[in-house]
Order: sequence, then structure tokens, then C-alpha cells
Amino acid sequence: MSTVLSLHQTLILPRIARALKPSSFSPSSSLRLLRPTSHPFPSPAAARASTIATHDDVDDAAPPAATHPSVIDVNPPRGTRDFLPDDMRLRNWLFQHFREVSRLLSFEEVDFPVLESEALFIRKAGEEITQQLYNFEDKGGRRVVLRPEITPSLARVVIKQGKSVSLPLKWFTIGQCWRYERMTRGRRREHYQWNMDILGVSRVRAEAELIHALVILFERLGITSVDVGIRISSRKVLQAVLQTYSIPEHLFTEVFVIVDKLGKFTREEIEKELVSVGVPLDAVKGLVEVLSFKSLARLEDVLGPNVEAVADLKQLFSMAEHYGYSQWIQFDASVVRGLAYYTGIVFEAFDKEGKLRAICGGGRYDRLLSTFGTDDIPACGFGFGDAVIMELLKEKGLVPDLIRQVDDIVFPLDVELEGPASKIVASLRQKGRSVDLVEDKRLKWVFKHAERINAGRLILVGNSEWQRGMVRVKILSTREEYEIKVDELD
Amino acid sequence: MSTVLSLHQTLILPRIARALKPSSFSPSSSLRLLRPTSHPFPSPAAARASTIATHDDVDDAAPPAATHPSVIDVNPPRGTRDFLPDDMRLRNWLFQHFREVSRLLSFEEVDFPVLESEALFIRKAGEEITQQLYNFEDKGGRRVVLRPEITPSLARVVIKQGKSVSLPLKWFTIGQCWRYERMTRGRRREHYQWNMDILGVSRVRAEAELIHALVILFERLGITSVDVGIRISSRKVLQAVLQTYSIPEHLFTEVFVIVDKLGKFTREEIEKELVSVGVPLDAVKGLVEVLSFKSLARLEDVLGPNVEAVADLKQLFSMAEHYGYSQWIQFDASVVRGLAYYTGIVFEAFDKEGKLRAICGGGRYDRLLSTFGTDDIPACGFGFGDAVIMELLKEKGLVPDLIRQVDDIVFPLDVELEGPASKIVASLRQKGRSVDLVEDKRLKWVFKHAERINAGRLILVGNSEWQRGMVRVKILSTREEYEIKVDELD
Repeated sequence: MSTVLSLHQTLILPRIARALKPSSFSPSSSLRLLRPTSHPFPSPAAARASTIATHDDVDDAAPPAATHPSVIDVNPPRGTRDFLPDDMRLRNWLFQHFREVSRLLSFEEVDFPVLESEALFIRKAGEEITQQLYNFEDKGGRRVVLRPEITPSLARVVIKQGKSVSLPLKWFTIGQCWRYERMTRGRRREHYQWNMDILGVSRVRAEAELIHALVILFERLGITSVDVGIRISSRKVLQAVLQTYSIPEHLFTEVFVIVDKLGKFTREEIEKELVSVGVPLDAVKGLVEVLSFKSLARLEDVLGPNVEAVADLKQLFSMAEHYGYSQWIQFDASVVRGLAYYTGIVFEAFDKEGKLRAICGGGRYDRLLSTFGTDDIPACGFGFGDAVIMELLKEKGLVPDLIRQVDDIVFPLDVELEGPASKIVASLRQKGRSVDLVEDKRLKWVFKHAERINAGRLILVGNSEWQRGMVRVKILSTREEYEIKVDELD
Repeated sequence: MSTVLSLHQTLILPRIARALKPSSFSPSSSLRLLRPTSHPFPSPAAARASTIATHDDVDDAAPPAATHPSVIDVNPPRGTRDFLPDDMRLRNWLFQHFREVSRLLSFEEVDFPVLESEALFIRKAGEEITQQLYNFEDKGGRRVVLRPEITPSLARVVIKQGKSVSLPLKWFTIGQCWRYERMTRGRRREHYQWNMDILGVSRVRAEAELIHALVILFERLGITSVDVGIRISSRKVLQAVLQTYSIPEHLFTEVFVIVDKLGKFTREEIEKELVSVGVPLDAVKGLVEVLSFKSLARLEDVLGPNVEAVADLKQLFSMAEHYGYSQWIQFDASVVRGLAYYTGIVFEAFDKEGKLRAICGGGRYDRLLSTFGTDDIPACGFGFGDAVIMELLKEKGLVPDLIRQVDDIVFPLDVELEGPASKIVASLRQKGRSVDLVEDKRLKWVFKHAERINAGRLILVGNSEWQRGMVRVKILSTREEYEIKVDELD
């Protein structure tokens, strides 16, 4: 106790005051040299503007020039994004649409860790996605990965549930996915992906439902079938061709992954690669021929009506009639999708102007579970990234103008009125209103601030009004101004 | 073309049919040996039940026993969680409260990458959080980390914005944070954290606002000040004591981090550690004495009324009166908080029964930015995890019973009616109703399913009704049943 009492006597107050005074904000001149925040959804126009260098251009960018000796790198890790308020509102708006469409189809939301065991994603088919794993060894010597896709985690959870799983299962997720690749313009290392999956339905109904979800989403975003189409085929189409030529089954997946690159590489390169994995030249020619089909009737002519590939596709197109979304879909044998595990119908949405990569894609993957050592469950699903759709919405002028919205600003005109102002703020928030409390500013600043944050009302707590139990209210859209009793404020 | 035409002739249809037929679901017996899904928010009771071994108990658990030779490990990586639908509904419910409270205080949502540069989190104060970095070297040789906390990312973004930053800035995030530590019961390697931060306000008003947010949240969750309190102190209290004894300033942070461990270690251990970093024994005794203070008046007696520590705290308690949340807060000099960068008022919420760790914590960190090499901005904020609050809500019986909700189930009684059923489904979804389309099941199954998913109506598409343009509707809560024209269904 005597120790404590001595503290008071020995206290050097000015020293404390100096040490604790927070310095006011005045950014160093070096900050001006740092690059501006780039928009997390880059417009295609910006992506094409090759004369403008951005942080994303160079794989190993030098740290930003700065005169300050020890300033940290203010950019997020290569290929990742910060979401500032404007970007975040847009992201929430998009995700809200994903959630609402999922609700309309009575899907349930689930989530899995962004960090998964590497083993879950090791496949030998040479897919781009497995070649770009963002993988590590953790401190416990475990091989882990920032997940490149969500479906294997879903499979893991379904296997874990075992007999307790209740089929059919209709789940959706909205989660971050990662890939480690050389950065190019407009290509990031992480993105968000909306996944919808149906497990336990072997009929084409599952595909028809998933495509219904896509169509509802597009319509809700203001996109029409003039802007966007959904190409549909089936892995069984090429499978039938391969079987015709007695190509061994173990080659099928490898062939699909090669054939999927047809847009990126020339026909000659693809043919060469097919031959190199062991497909005879006549089979290669047959494959490439069939891939060019854009008509289901043509396919039927060639494969016959009783082939499962044809029957599935015809059923899907018939269902589309009933749902009323026929105008959105088209048969296109060149759709294969790059993932190894698809087994049946595959589909992808694309912009009809042909400027962008696929908007989303999916298909049936009935045999994924057995690759993990358990019995299969029929399954299909899609992944829908946040990047291409935002590019498209920008192209079409469909990105909404989402501004910050605040109901009230409460501003005490005098230091003595800060107490009453707090009370008013608490009472308004109790009533569900979003309230910004501003102090220690000039009235001119407050008006500018109100405009910037799109406030509904300005509530001024002034001395003369307060003495009469009143405050002054200004409706900012109409400039209407009035006094009101504090109790009547709501 | 000739190649293609030959395909039809050589096609071996039965073989295709066999190869493509999806196998039906029959989980292997090995699955029964796998451990059941554990709830991602373990109840304290479960956490204390030490006789029940769970996957989380052992640091290097053997893979689950399975007779299937190559079954993958169905558990997520150690210390992480899967969110199945029930858990996800609960998580969304909690996050929705975080968002709503943030809205009431007119905060804007932002987000930063979960993967950050390690350099952002390297501090020398020996905090637990920096000793448990989940860090890696990526393929490009960069040191990266799954962020253990969000504040340094916020600082990075504010520094990046430089002069364009508009102060005061009021931002919130809800994001995943990671730590790599030996797993113990109830302690995971990842959790979600709600952060609210105010930058650009040096007055205690910022702290008062943040504490208002906490109180509003607790009230909305049904928690009262009988259950939960908020302890408040200031780093300036101990700072004043250390200055009295002329302890050099560079030791302050280290002292705070040691003193923060007072609950975990004995007083003797803490004293020993303080001496070992160079604090003289009389200063140690003075510190420990002051840490026991639970009364602001007592502190004022000892430090004097003009010390900034006392003035700040008195102002905060006076503001709390005006907001109307005085009953929630109490002065407690032992609150220091474990993060190195706090400079002023610190606070934490705790359950009054003393069973749980701190529910959340925060404080003022006016000098964080200069540690990154730029000029400071006054700042304060808090982090609020999803784990302890869920434990508390369970203890108090305040976890809501959130069940799946679906508006309609549409069920065609005949294969021929699947087309009309699709049309009805599309039309109902167009009207905003969530609709589950069920086929190929027995009516008994459909009724059970309707109960399980809590459907509002069952819409039966039967032959005799359909021929008259009608469907049969069953309201599942009342068992009421009627026929209605398809066009009148809404």
C-alpha cells in the first residue's frame, strides 16, 4: 500500500501527456507514390488496356517506391483482393442473389474449410485445376492446400455422414477458392464461387433444376437470353465415340481433359496431344468431327436414338420446354468441361458476344465418391465464380449503383450537449435506425458528410432548442427543416 | 464425314448402357466406423466431458479405422470445421446480428484476404497471437500467413489509401482468422471474427460507440447485464505506474503482454517474468498492486485526477450514463489485453459466472500505423469471435431453433405429369416461393420429407385433377386439403 501511495507523489504529468497524445493524421509524402486501390472486379476494358501498368502485371513486382525507410508493402498478397466498402456492397449484392436463387430451389447452405488436405485434390488427369494447387506443408508436416474448388470437400463431408445422409441432398456454398499460377491481366489467384449440388438424383431432373437456377439468376440480374446462352453436351457423347474405336476406358478422362482445351489450342495441337496419349489417328478424326456438332438431331443421326447420351440430352431439352427456358440453352458437342470427374451431362454459360471466358460450368459426376474409396452416389452440380459475371454486368451496364445509406446523423452543436446527443443516438438505434454520431466538426463539414454518406436526416442538438426539450431536424432530400420534441423523434 | 457415319453402325449399345448406369447409393459398412460429425460450436458441457475422446483431442490422430482399403480421411484439416445446414443456419443467424448492429452504428463492411504477408504480423512483443502464426513459404518464396487477426490488414489498407482516406472511417469485417497451436479441447485453429474499427477519432467517443455496439448485440441476442459484463481499463494506467518508476518506454509493451497472462499464470510466475525482463522488484510490486483495483475512485486517489488514464476512463463512464449502458460496464485495472499495439482504453466482455474465456475484446491502438513506417491515425476497435458467444448462448438456452423452411413441395403422381409439374414449379419460383420438386418417390416418403424440411404446402399433380386444369393442395400445418385451378395457384 505504501508503494502505491507514493505513485501519486512522484507522477510526472506533463511527460505522460506528451507520450500519450495521439498524433493527428497527416500522411507522409511517400504515400502519394503508392499505387491506387484497384477495383476487385476489373472491367474487361481495363483488362484490355495494356498500356496501363498495374500491380498485377508483373510476377515479381518491386516494392512500391517510397521515401519512408521502413514502410510495409501495402498491397495484399499477389493475386488477392481487398474489398473496400463500394466493392463489398457489390459483392454482398451478388451473393444475396446467389442465396435468394438457392432459396427458391430449396437448397440448404453449407460451408467447408478453405484449407483442406492436399490428398483431396490429387488427380492424375492433368487438369489445369490440379496443376495450380496453392499447396503447402504445415508445421505438423501435413500437406495442405487452399482449396481450388469446392466439390471434393462436399464429397468428403457426404462420405463422412455415411448412412445418416438424407438423400436427395441439395446443398449450396459460397466460398473462396484459390489457384497458384503465373499472374496475367484479369486473372487472380483467388475468387469466390457459388456452388449448387444435388446428390442422390440419377435422373436428368437434377441437371434441369440446376440449369433452372442459372436462368433464374441471370433473369434476376437483368441478363437476357440475348446476352447469355447455356451450352449443353454430355461426356457420354465422346465416350460413345471412344468406345466405337475400342479405346481403353482408362484413357477417357485424359482425352476429355485434352479435348476441353480446344478453344485455347489449335485443332492440330489437340490432335497431336490425343495421338501422344495413345488415341489412334482415325479415332482422333472421329472425335474432332463429333465435337463440331451443334445439333442434337445430327448427333442422333450419327449415334442413334437409343444411345444414353442422346436420350439424356433429349430429355433435358424436353424438360427445358416445360420450365420455359428453352431459349437459354443449346446443344454443343464441344462442351466437355475441364474437370476430370464429370461423367454425364456437362454445361456452361457463356456471353453471346464471345468476349469473356465461361461464366459458370457444371455437370454430372456420378463416380467421384468411388475415387475416394467409397460407394458412389449419383451427383451433379455447378460452380459459378464472381469474376466473369461482374465483367459481363459491367459490359451490359447492369451493375447497380449501391451507395452507403445511413438513416440519421446526430450532431451536438456544443460540447455540453454531447450527453443529450448520446441519449438521442441510443434511442434511435433502439428503434432500428442506423445513426452516425458526429462531434467536434464544423456544420459545413457535417452537411458535406451527410451528402457523402447519403444520410436521410440531420438531427441538430442545439442549446436553445434543447432547453425547451426540442431538437432541430433537417430532411436532407427535401431540405425541409423543423423542430420536434425529443420524445416524438422516431 | 464418312468416319462419323460409321460410328452409328459400330456402336455397341449395351456396353455403353452398363458403363454409364449410375450406381445407387448403398454406403459401405466401413462408413459406419467413421466418427460422427461434431458440432462446430461445441457446448462447454461437451468440452468438459473428458472421458469422451474426439478427433480434436490428439495432436496426431491416427486415420479413422476403415475396412475399405483407400478411403480418404473424411475429417477436415485439424482444428477446422465443416458447417452442415443446421450449423450454417446458426452461423448465418449470428453473422446477421453482427451485420445489423454494425448497420445501426452506420459502419461499412469491408473484407481483406485471409492470406496475408507474414511481415504484417511480425511483432517482437512475444504475444501469443504472433507465436501461433499459421505461416508458410509459397511457391514464389514469399512468406505468407493465414491471418491470425484482422487489424493489421485494416492498417495496411488505410496506409494504401493514403490521402484519399476519408476520416473518420467506421469499418466492420466478418472474417476467418487462424492460429497454429497444439490442439486442446474446445480450442480450434480457425474461427470467425467480427471486427469493428473507428479510425480518425482520438476522443473517447470512439470507445463509447464501440461498447454501445457490444451492448446492442448482447441485448439482441437476449443476453442481459446479469449474464455479461464489460471490464474496462486503460494501458495508460500501467504506463503511468511504469513511468513513476522510470522504467524505459521500450519495455512497456513487453510488460503489458506479460501482465495480461495474470489469469493464466500465478502471481508469482508473473512477478518472476517481469523481473526477468528488467523491471525492478519495487515496480513489480507497484504494478501488481494497481492491477488489483476495481474502483475508478481508488485509481483516482492513487494517480490523481489529472492523469490522462483517469480522465479518459471517467469520461467513458460518464458517456455510458448518457447511452444508458452503465449497468454493463465496470472498471477493472487487471484488463490489459494481449495484443502489443494497444495504447489507451482496453475492454473485454466476460460471462459473470466466470466459466468462459473473454467473449470479445478491444481497445485503442493510436500508434499501430507508425510501426508500419507511416504517420499514425488515432484508432480503436474490437474483435468478437464466434466461439465463446455460442458457448454462452447454449449455457443460457438462447440458441434459437432454426429449422429448414420450404414453401412448397410439388409432386407429380405420374411420370407423364412431370412436364406439367416442372411448369408449376417454374411459375411458383417466379412468384418468389421456394419450391422443392420431388419425383419418383412413394407418397408416404413425400409426406415424411415434407415434415422433415418443414414445407408449407404439398402440391400434388394427379391425372384426374390435371385433366380438369386443377391440382390438389395440402396445407401441411392444418392438414387442410383442396383442389385449385393451376392458374390460381400462388
